[in-house]
Amino acid sequence: MLIKRYISEGLSHYSYMIADMAQATIIDPRRDIQVYLDDAAEAGCHIDHVLETHRNEDYLIGSVELETATGAEIFHADSQWDYQYGMPVSDGQQWSVGRLKIKALHTPGHTPGSMSYVLHDPDGHPWILFSGDALFSGDAGRVDLLGEDRLQEMASMLYDSIFNKILPLGDGVILCPAHGAGSMCGSKIAERTWTTLGLERQLNPKLQVKSERKFIELHADMLDRPPYFRKMEMMNLEGPPILKWIPKLKPLLPETFSLGMENVQVVDTRDQIDFGAGHLPGSIALFMEKLPNFAGWFLNYDDPIRFVCDPRDAEAIVSIMIRIGFDRLSGYLKNGIVGWSLAGKRVASIETPSMDEFCTWVEGEKPIFPLDVRGKDEISDGGLTLGKNIPLTGIPESLDQIPKDRKVVPLCPRGNRSMLAASLLARAGWDDLAVPVGGLGAWKASGCDQSL
Amino acid sequence: MLIKRYISEGLSHYSYMIADMAQATIIDPRRDIQVYLDDAAEAGCHIDHVLETHRNEDYLIGSVELETATGAEIFHADSQWDYQYGMPVSDGQQWSVGRLKIKALHTPGHTPGSMSYVLHDPDGHPWILFSGDALFSGDAGRVDLLGEDRLQEMASMLYDSIFNKILPLGDGVILCPAHGAGSMCGSKIAERTWTTLGLERQLNPKLQVKSERKFIELHADMLDRPPYFRKMEMMNLEGPPILKWIPKLKPLLPETFSLGMENVQVVDTRDQIDFGAGHLPGSIALFMEKLPNFAGWFLNYDDPIRFVCDPRDAEAIVSIMIRIGFDRLSGYLKNGIVGWSLAGKRVASIETPSMDEFCTWVEGEKPIFPLDVRGKDEISDGGLTLGKNIPLTGIPESLDQIPKDRKVVPLCPRGNRSMLAASLLARAGWDDLAVPVGGLGAWKASGCDQSL
Amino acid sequence: MLIKRYISEGLSHYSYMIADMAQATIIDPRRDIQVYLDDAAEAGCHIDHVLETHRNEDYLIGSVELETATGAEIFHADSQWDYQYGMPVSDGQQWSVGRLKIKALHTPGHTPGSMSYVLHDPDGHPWILFSGDALFSGDAGRVDLLGEDRLQEMASMLYDSIFNKILPLGDGVILCPAHGAGSMCGSKIAERTWTTLGLERQLNPKLQVKSERKFIELHADMLDRPPYFRKMEMMNLEGPPILKWIPKLKPLLPETFSLGMENVQVVDTRDQIDFGAGHLPGSIALFMEKLPNFAGWFLNYDDPIRFVCDPRDAEAIVSIMIRIGFDRLSGYLKNGIVGWSLAGKRVASIETPSMDEFCTWVEGEKPIFPLDVRGKDEISDGGLTLGKNIPLTGIPESLDQIPKDRKVVPLCPRGNRSMLAASLLARAGWDDLAVPVGGLGAWKASGCDQSL
Amino acid sequence: MLIKRYISEGLSHYSYMIADMAQATIIDPRRDIQVYLDDAAEAGCHIDHVLETHRNEDYLIGSVELETATGAEIFHADSQWDYQYGMPVSDGQQWSVGRLKIKALHTPGHTPGSMSYVLHDPDGHPWILFSGDALFSGDAGRVDLLGEDRLQEMASMLYDSIFNKILPLGDGVILCPAHGAGSMCGSKIAERTWTTLGLERQLNPKLQVKSERKFIELHADMLDRPPYFRKMEMMNLEGPPILKWIPKLKPLLPETFSLGMENVQVVDTRDQIDFGAGHLPGSIALFMEKLPNFAGWFLNYDDPIRFVCDPRDAEAIVSIMIRIGFDRLSGYLKNGIVGWSLAGKRVASIETPSMDEFCTWVEGEKPIFPLDVRGKDEISDGGLTLGKNIPLTGIPESLDQIPKDRKVVPLCPRGNRSMLAASLLARAGWDDLAVPVGGLGAWKASGCDQSL
Repeated sequence: MLIKRYISEGLSHYSYMIADMAQATIIDPRRDIQVYLDDAAEAGCHIDHVLETHRNEDYLIGSVELETATGAEIFHADSQWDYQYGMPVSDGQQWSVGRLKIKALHTPGHTPGSMSYVLHDPDGHPWILFSGDALFSGDAGRVDLLGEDRLQEMASMLYDSIFNKILPLGDGVILCPAHGAGSMCGSKIAERTWTTLGLERQLNPKLQVKSERKFIELHADMLDRPPYFRKMEMMNLEGPPILKWIPKLKPLLPETFSLGMENVQVVDTRDQIDFGAGHLPGSIALFMEKLPNFAGWFLNYDDPIRFVCDPRDAEAIVSIMIRIGFDRLSGYLKNGIVGWSLAGKRVASIETPSMDEFCTWVEGEKPIFPLDVRGKDEISDGGLTLGKNIPLTGIPESLDQIPKDRKVVPLCPRGNRSMLAASLLARAGWDDLAVPVGGLGAWKASGCDQSL
Repeated sequence: MLIKRYISEGLSHYSYMIADMAQATIIDPRRDIQVYLDDAAEAGCHIDHVLETHRNEDYLIGSVELETATGAEIFHADSQWDYQYGMPVSDGQQWSVGRLKIKALHTPGHTPGSMSYVLHDPDGHPWILFSGDALFSGDAGRVDLLGEDRLQEMASMLYDSIFNKILPLGDGVILCPAHGAGSMCGSKIAERTWTTLGLERQLNPKLQVKSERKFIELHADMLDRPPYFRKMEMMNLEGPPILKWIPKLKPLLPETFSLGMENVQVVDTRDQIDFGAGHLPGSIALFMEKLPNFAGWFLNYDDPIRFVCDPRDAEAIVSIMIRIGFDRLSGYLKNGIVGWSLAGKRVASIETPSMDEFCTWVEGEKPIFPLDVRGKDEISDGGLTLGKNIPLTGIPESLDQIPKDRKVVPLCPRGNRSMLAASLLARAGWDDLAVPVGGLGAWKASGCDQSL
Repeated sequence: MLIKRYISEGLSHYSYMIADMAQATIIDPRRDIQVYLDDAAEAGCHIDHVLETHRNEDYLIGSVELETATGAEIFHADSQWDYQYGMPVSDGQQWSVGRLKIKALHTPGHTPGSMSYVLHDPDGHPWILFSGDALFSGDAGRVDLLGEDRLQEMASMLYDSIFNKILPLGDGVILCPAHGAGSMCGSKIAERTWTTLGLERQLNPKLQVKSERKFIELHADMLDRPPYFRKMEMMNLEGPPILKWIPKLKPLLPETFSLGMENVQVVDTRDQIDFGAGHLPGSIALFMEKLPNFAGWFLNYDDPIRFVCDPRDAEAIVSIMIRIGFDRLSGYLKNGIVGWSLAGKRVASIETPSMDEFCTWVEGEKPIFPLDVRGKDEISDGGLTLGKNIPLTGIPESLDQIPKDRKVVPLCPRGNRSMLAASLLARAGWDDLAVPVGGLGAWKASGCDQSL
Repeated sequence: MLIKRYISEGLSHYSYMIADMAQATIIDPRRDIQVYLDDAAEAGCHIDHVLETHRNEDYLIGSVELETATGAEIFHADSQWDYQYGMPVSDGQQWSVGRLKIKALHTPGHTPGSMSYVLHDPDGHPWILFSGDALFSGDAGRVDLLGEDRLQEMASMLYDSIFNKILPLGDGVILCPAHGAGSMCGSKIAERTWTTLGLERQLNPKLQVKSERKFIELHADMLDRPPYFRKMEMMNLEGPPILKWIPKLKPLLPETFSLGMENVQVVDTRDQIDFGAGHLPGSIALFMEKLPNFAGWFLNYDDPIRFVCDPRDAEAIVSIMIRIGFDRLSGYLKNGIVGWSLAGKRVASIETPSMDEFCTWVEGEKPIFPLDVRGKDEISDGGLTLGKNIPLTGIPESLDQIPKDRKVVPLCPRGNRSMLAASLLARAGWDDLAVPVGGLGAWKASGCDQSL
């Protein structure tokens, strides 16, 4: 018997394999499915079924990919929408996996057709709940995806799903949601990586309410919605294009890399200081760690993408990109920035002052424009006294609020999003930019943060 | 934050790493510690503490090995005994791991000083219980290790530990015991690989009792006790010899392999049919899958051990052996049985009749002696009508009950232990032996099992 | 700069990558091309050209596969034949690889259009000769592929190619042929794994001749020709089917494995003793080490193939099979022979007597029929005094020469081919078969080989 | 049979394994010997002998390490010196490796006792020459190690060794020297990675001489001698300390990393632009690719060393360092420069102007001091018209020639050594420094290199 969780870093997406005897079921597979195939082969199992918890909006589902590779039957929730593949799940439907049983439980709220799946142990008792985006560790699923009009209605549904269907399964049941901390699908997911219904009942802030009304008050919020969600929703109804095998990012020498650059999106996944020190003009600083989160905000699906990256990250980059449907990946820059420079090509830079220096700016007369790119909910302290707050994802449409006559200094807790913001501004024509290394965090640690 | 379980196959031993921020704690480490070091390095953590749940009897504890490699402080339970290393734990003692807290909980019963460890989540709530050998998934720890005299007393202690200390932590708490299904430390451990206090309270057969008296009645049993337990207990008080690095099994050509054979224990880890077809005279059929379980029953700690095995298993064999203190491993036979034969050396064999053939024996007049080597608790159906039942581990002292004038046919559910039994008999001088491929299982599948 | 040899074990086929600056050329690629792609990516090179030395007959060429993956241009020798892809090479044609130059040299004999390729070092001197099947270490290419009629003519061509074109390049030139010891394309290839024109001029037995006439006398022989050669020749003109990615062998449980068995070829790649002890009725003993050599002799291209093998060999098996065009691979038996038996299915066996026992047969009255399956050229000692010699590959058409009324005992130097022969006979209906472990080699080592 | 070359990157050191049947010999092993042990095990061979070609000066020999692990006998050349281990080789001495023979050939010149080893093929013919530092591809060994006094004498010896002992072995013999291109032990080693005596006789510039006198004139040069050579020579007579296993570099958080920094050497192995953008004050820019070459020039053997590096390089760094005897490696900076800054610690930087900007400096009035750090032999074009040439390794003793009142701009072909020079100057107190990205190469490519 094998119950295994697969974490897609960055998206914080969890998929699961349940295997027993010669059978296996996958819940919410991602698009790069080799890992499921390998584990199933290793365990001597055939993947019979793919169960989807809902029409996903934040990544491409790998169901059709798995069906192509294994012949597995796909069952999708949210069958009120127009799926081009698979079969609809109905509430109470059951499947066997060896000696185990899985039972569908209709738990709407995140979407109208959301399903949870209850895994019963060999003796037939509820053992593990795969809750999709209904209930997380420390949070509940967002209810705003159908728009503000239906916010209350969806929150009400979710209340019913959690309090009347999920929690009654019993405190001892293990909870396996579709996301961990860091996802866009719940705002406050806890770091409690393994959890149970009992722990959530006691500790989940969203469940500490006395009534449905209180729950709706607390939870019915409109949240940030990355532009690529629309694309994912559409493709997840159609069934994403079949990959069959994962492409490799090719190394491109500067001459090849620079061909047709006008239509290319250049993504630089290196650290903030590396980007600051030297980068390709027009490239975007989508540092590795947050690539899955911000690629969908700042890249379009039409133009090909080339990368400036550590070659050792090439494989991980491909995984990240295809999970969110960016398939037009044409390669990475061989020999990096130094090779680019050696080929006689122009290198741009963005100033990365040390904290010592930055402190003199803040204290002195240097007319800088601090640009606080944190999200509204990260600012608990009243924010900076100087400059302005424009959350990172709002920058493209707020360019007119940012001056060009002073040095613009994007700031965030660690400096990474600051450099991303700076790269967006540089591409849009700003040329006096600086990103202090380590951002607000380093600034606080430096002891000179009284005056901003 | 990282909570990770490490499974030592065969022993079904679980050890755990709890890591947060730059700190890590290991609970019940095994002796080949590289995996902890690698994971801690990957996570950027230093291993500060090693916590032992009890004086282990079934494997060598890696505490001193970890202390040598990292400087970690060792805390041992069962400090009533005379430890040569580390510090004693006291009930209620606390340690920090980054933002997490671990608290010791005295849960005697398996041993008098057994400790469980409660991990609290970042908000301070009980989250995970590391229960050592007190409570398992589907069973409770054995209480017979101090002998029959103290059986009732220990069972009573365990009742108190489980019902008055552990279960009150709450149904939602996740249970992480020191063993999974297959261990010698609990007889009926369930296959529910992940569990909670709530699931155990409801489903664990040992907890479905109304009173302490009933629990004692149900649970206070004397179980099989492998001879190597004594060695492990002794070494775990002294602290096992430091390895620093794991030795590699050397390939030995037949000429080298056969040097000084009179004092060598030859272990053959191949499948039953391979062993049957050809093996070194005097070698023992300790097939790979059950090597961790039976090595301690049938090998002595004084003579060097050489292996006949698939070279690709060499590394796994070393891990298994050193975990239970067999360090005198001198190599494996290069080029296998064919090479041995090509070197002009004698190859022995044990007949492996097909089921068709075996059925004619059973039905016909062939005077065979079926030897049922299953354990008493495996025989629910009254057993065979012919031959005799001697559990595998009892064979060495029951040789006088086995005839030499008929073909002896050891039988067990899959045939593996049968071949092990046959190899013990061959070494003791029996020469008319047969092991039907697949044992009783194949026999039942063949449809001719009416008559035995 | 990178010059790298790739060895396809078993076929003893060598392919080569020549890379410099951003360019790479592959000579005689095999069909599983990932290794070339990986090395080129690692070296930051693009594969521009694929050069074939001749229309290959013993494996499928990977040229079209590489063209599909990289856009490389293919140049084929033997353009007198009707190729469906690529461009013809002409004598003296040149290509650049970074600072290096490659020049084609027409060296007919093995085939009429065979080309060698001379790699010049950065200063323009002949450095390495890629000789295809013209000249090997210790042998010259076979000249019998166009039939007995043209044997003399082809040998004469080859003499001219070697003595008038290749050797004059200079003793110091390194020789990189298309095959090493063990290939079917030259009969006596030496084990001198690295060699030079000077070493061959002095040491190659085929070059120690005083005249063309002597060379022809010595070298113009008709050799064994595996039946699959015809298939390879045909497919290598058409261009083998594109794979895009290498399939994985699936684990099949006995129930699935046995579906439609009447049309399946079951290949058992385990060792002789394992096969002897237990195997699927009708399966062929194509032991791993010689699978590449004998698959093409004993399998057909129409029926699907399933394997009984160590699961750890599954990947290697696929590589071997697709290199010679067997693409219908449907899986391997999960849980092996024991699992097969446990599923109630029939297991067959072939007796594997120890040498002690076999010696009593030979010396005694047991009416056995020793079947010497060595090739004619392996028998230097007059052969066995009993039984008969039928080389392994001749067995299918010589069944009428083998008695059924006595125990047939195939013999060869190590016993592997003997078991293969025995499996062929078992499939054809023989049921009294035995293969002494280690064959003639073990027999000689045992000291009882006077009497056969 | 297995003949294998092991390349130690950076040092460009080649060691070799010769294996046949069950025996193996290693020539000039490096100190991290696991790769020899693994390959020997894989081939089923025991390493019997270690042969040294000379008392090495540029890396630590792994002979004693191998002896400890395997019991191999060590034979050292240069036995005129006082070895603390092993046995002396004598001219003509022979060893067997399976069916092969190795014969010692005294070839003095690089050192007085240098030995070459001739490997004979199974038929007894000279096949491969392991020439140590006597003869390389495209160069001969340096003859200046005993000092200027004995320069002529050693060159004369080497002439005799090459022309009267080595070349007479025959043009076809394959040459396997102890170094490839990039070593400090020969100045002009060719990129001809595989070579023969015939190719060297024709193409090696040092062998195109008519007389011994001419050879001496051409070859007897005093070359750069890294300070660590003395240490290697001494340790190679004593036998380097036994490692038993290779240490791992530990991740250190900023707090730990910064403990006792005054006595620590901080080595930064990242690229020039990363170092420029942000680095630890006082750290040295020993970029990964050239770490093996420059560590011995700029680090001392007494103080511990800590690294700022990509964690994925940690293993390679350890290999490189221990090969040249730096064993005091205490860890690497976890979370890099950003983490350092977030911990409130000071980050230093060195300006990395783009070529556009640098060109304006050169053309304009900015009073810069270009510091050409190339070696004398790299400057074929007369050098820069501005600034000064001080080869990189001469900088520490030439600090008084470098002004502090102008921006100092180190320059070299690719910019890497420039940044190393800049880091040395920064550590010595210079604070106005700049390194144009890509150095002179980028400058030429940019098209503005007329004026310097």
